[in-house]
Order: sequence, then structure tokens, then C-alpha cells
Amino acid sequence: MRLSDIGEFGLIQKLRAKCRKPSTGIISGIGDDAAVIKAGNRKILVTADMMLEDIHFDLSLSTFYQLGWKFLAVNISDIFAMGGKPKYFFVSLGIPKARNTKDLDELYAGMLKIAGQYSIVIAGGDTCASADGLVLSGSLIGEANRIITRAGAREGDGIFVTDTVGDSAMGLTLLKGQGARGRGQGLIKKHLMPDIKPLKNTSKVTSMIDISDGLLIDLSHICDESRVGALLYSDRIPISVELRKAAAHLGKDPLEFALKGGEDYALLFTAPKGARKDAYQIGEIVRKGRFMVDARGKKTRFRPEGYEHFK
Amino acid sequence: MRLSDIGEFGLIQKLRAKCRKPSTGIISGIGDDAAVIKAGNRKILVTADMMLEDIHFDLSLSTFYQLGWKFLAVNISDIFAMGGKPKYFFVSLGIPKARNTKDLDELYAGMLKIAGQYSIVIAGGDTCASADGLVLSGSLIGEANRIITRAGAREGDGIFVTDTVGDSAMGLTLLKGQGARGRGQGLIKKHLMPDIKPLKNTSKVTSMIDISDGLLIDLSHICDESRVGALLYSDRIPISVELRKAAAHLGKDPLEFALKGGEDYALLFTAPKGARKDAYQIGEIVRKGRFMVDARGKKTRFRPEGYEHFK
Repeated sequence: MRLSDIGEFGLIQKLRAKCRKPSTGIISGIGDDAAVIKAGNRKILVTADMMLEDIHFDLSLSTFYQLGWKFLAVNISDIFAMGGKPKYFFVSLGIPKARNTKDLDELYAGMLKIAGQYSIVIAGGDTCASADGLVLSGSLIGEANRIITRAGAREGDGIFVTDTVGDSAMGLTLLKGQGARGRGQGLIKKHLMPDIKPLKNTSKVTSMIDISDGLLIDLSHICDESRVGALLYSDRIPISVELRKAAAHLGKDPLEFALKGGEDYALLFTAPKGARKDAYQIGEIVRKGRFMVDARGKKTRFRPEGYEHFK
Repeated sequence: MRLSDIGEFGLIQKLRAKCRKPSTGIISGIGDDAAVIKAGNRKILVTADMMLEDIHFDLSLSTFYQLGWKFLAVNISDIFAMGGKPKYFFVSLGIPKARNTKDLDELYAGMLKIAGQYSIVIAGGDTCASADGLVLSGSLIGEANRIITRAGAREGDGIFVTDTVGDSAMGLTLLKGQGARGRGQGLIKKHLMPDIKPLKNTSKVTSMIDISDGLLIDLSHICDESRVGALLYSDRIPISVELRKAAAHLGKDPLEFALKGGEDYALLFTAPKGARKDAYQIGEIVRKGRFMVDARGKKTRFRPEGYEHFK
């Protein structure tokens, strides 16, 4: 069987089954944004992300500074998605020999900029030559008093998102030159340097994930792990004016970008209905089934469509 | 400036200077086998290693099982080198789409085999498609009561090594077909599946490193970090009978393999002279200078020669 037959999520399920074993010290492992391990009286969060040239980034579209910034940002987002505080970053780099040290200086400048913003220490890693493109692999270690997983959503909870969605996917579309030049600079910036923010108060939050693969896929992860269903109100999904304008210009549906576009790194969470004034309530958790409800109340099933590796 | 001008160790020095900052919680960071962070009352060790196809491994010379085994082994070795106990492994994989899931099953079987041997839990990671070769990146988290760095060697200490050296480099030479077929199976096995072991009693050990880049380079790291010199007695360096035989067959000097060959993953450490009966005492720490002393007492300076990335 080839990987392209089972896809990324099929592979994760397979690896998870393989690595599951009765273990002390692991509270939550493969299948959430970060793993939770116990160290004495503390709960430690660990997340790992890999970014490969020409798969995750294109050096003709991004500066090294932006790349360094985003590389650490996506890791921070995973820690935020667990309700944690990021602390130590470990960076492994595979670098083509011909690369200039100035490129690496810029990559580090971007990483150190966002690291400074959240008091994260770059504490170690590995560097080696690469035969092909640039390889970035990071592990971020964080701490949390109260861990929030994908598994706690309950029937009757509201579904919330912290920011507009679809901007990053449209930003990438514009960057690739599939739109008019000079348009949508805010969208492009959101793609290159996503504006991540932690949820300040997580006391009533029952489950959380960051939107990396797309709203429908990431909401489906919550449904899978919490064993619940969801209703999503299509007219409540926050779409930026800039995304609406760019989509109109391209003759595309902005909702498609909002539902299926990835890499927004907004936080998607569940909490008692009406509990949050600081996020957009876009739906509710139900016992089973996954439905979109449009402005006229018409219900249609949704599938977890978006970006998935290997497929 | 290109990376090939400054080399791997030049780059590490550069990154270290860039990332050094007053920080709470970090006991030891970039520039040792693993970083040490504090979590409450515990000391946590974190090491990261990246292995790239056609740089670190050649899939025509190694099975996926052997590769998985070695990938985790080199990470475990870094934790052992700090006097620690490995606990949780995080695996990030970049996989060419066309790879068979059976290959991954074997890779995981190799990892899980050695993980089981040391009660290590594979706790998470990241999987993605790769445009070119296979990318393996791992972070291993461990714990230690007493941390041993590269920085504690003192004038008058003995220099010890736990196992014969040079076997892995000769194993690779043989694998590449630069020797007679069928010879040196033990050496080849040491290259493909290095036989790592922790040091059982570390009470008197003043500094430690694992031999990954080669004896001369790794001893130089101890000298640099401890600000001391070293005398190495060339006739006391443990060389296996199998390495001697293979070297004789190839008309090569086995000592060259022992001093400059990497990937042995034996532990190199310092401790009071005569303190250890369970390791080979191969030299002593002096105030300054780095010398080889031959059987007739002739002293020559040595340089940290061996394998270095980017050079």
C-alpha cells in the first residue's frame, strides 16, 4: 500500500495504534496538537513540526526572515491549542551546502523575533548538510496548568473561533500570482507571518485545536476525539472584508476559503454556549452527525475537506 | 559567506552566540549532547537529531528496520552521554509519496524494538510528504539525577572510552564495497545498528560525550568546553581484532579509523585516573595542548580531524 492510498490521517491512525501501549507518565500522545508528559509535579507539553522546502514553503515567495518567524509560530500555535505556555524551542536544520550564512542569519532573526515576543528560549537542536532543499524541524516544549485536548467537547457546547478564517489560503493564492498584483497585502502577510495569539482565559473551554489543515478538517478532529457531532452555521463564520474583496475579484466563493483553507492558526474551541464574548460562536456540538446550516436553515452534511498530506 | 567556508562547528558557535541570553530554566543549551531544562523540581534532558537520506543513510545499504533502530539509537546515545535516562521520543518524518507503507512499518518496528529495550515511549511527532528523499527528525526527552556535561574535565583526570572505536567507520567502508564481500560482518553490524550502552555508575565521572564525529573531534569538544588539554596514548586506544584484520586486508592503518572514524557511539569520559575498571583508560587531561603519545613516548600535536558537515 502506498502512502498516497491512506493519506496523512490514515497514516497517523496507523502509527498511533502501533505506538499505543500502557505507559506511565504519558497523559496524551499521538493525535493531539502536542503530547503531554509528566515530569515530577509538572505537566510538560511537547510539539514537533517539520517544514520542507517546496512542500511547506517556497523560497521564491517568502524571505528567510518570514520563514523563520512562521516556523516557530506554527509550533507556538500547537502549544496555545493545548492551553499551554511555550518555553523552549529545539531547531534541527538540514541546509543545502551552497546556502549563504546570511540566509541563516535571517532565518534565525525571524525565529528570535517571535521567540522574544513570547519569552521562548532557543535551547538546542541539530544542524547538518542536506542533499536537496532546506529542511526545518522543530520541537517546542511548553508548560500548562490546565491541559485542553481535542477530546472534551460535550453535546450542547458552542463552537468558537478566535479570528477570521480563510485569509491565509487566499494570501497564498494571491502570492502565487493567481490574483491581481498589489492586492490583499494583509492576506499575504497572514499567510507568511500568521498572527497567532493565545486564548487568555481558558477556564470554561472544553476542547481546542488550532486551524492548520482547515476549519472543516480541524473541527472533524474535535468531533472524532470527543465522539460528538457538530452543526456549523455558514453565515456566522467570520470572513474578513479583505478576503471577500479578493474572492469577488477572482470570482471565487470566500466561504470555500474559510472552510477549507489551512494555515490560519486561529484557535477553534468549544465552551458552554454564550460563555465567550472574545471569540466568534460559529456552531454547536450535537450528539452525532456533521452538518452545515445555511442562512435559510438548510442542513447539509459536511466532509472533512481541505489540505491533507500524501493525498 | 557560504556554509562550506565555516563548517558545521563554526555554524554551531555562531548559532550559540546568537541564541545565548540570560534565561531562567536553562541549565545547559546549545553545544552539548543534550540541553538541560528545569521543570519544577526536575531536570529534563532534550536532544534532537536529524537524519537525511543520502547524507546520513543510504537505503541501498540499510534496511528500514536497521534505519529505525539506528535513528532512535543515536538519540539515546546523546541522553546516555549526559548521564540521563531516555523516556519519550518524538518523531517527525518527511516521506516521499511513492514510499510503501510496509517500509514505514519496518522503520517503526526498528524504532519500537530499541524503544522497548530501554522502556522509551514514542509519544508524538509530525508526518508530511517530502519532495525528495526520506527525512527523519527526532527529539528524545530524558531525565537525570546528576547531569554530566562536556565541561567538567580537570587536569589530572584520566580519559576513558567504553568500547572499541573505528569499527563503525570500517563497517561503512566495507558496506560501500571497498573491501572483500562477506568480511567484517560484525563491523558492518556496528555501523548499521550501533551497540549503545549507558555508563552504569557515573558517580566519579567529570565530563562525558558520545563518539559520533570521531574520537579526536569529540575529545576536542571536551577540551574546548572544559578549557583543558589532553594526552592520548595511541597504543592504549582499543581497536577490535576485526578492525585490525579488515584494515590489514585493505592495507590501511586501523588507528586512523579509531581516531577519525565517527558513529561509534561509545562513550568518551573523564574521571580520576584508575577510577574505572569497566572502561579503557586511553589518556589523561593536562593543563593545555592536545597531544598523541606513541608507544615509544614520542609526542605529536593532534588536530580535531574526522567527519564534519558542510566542509
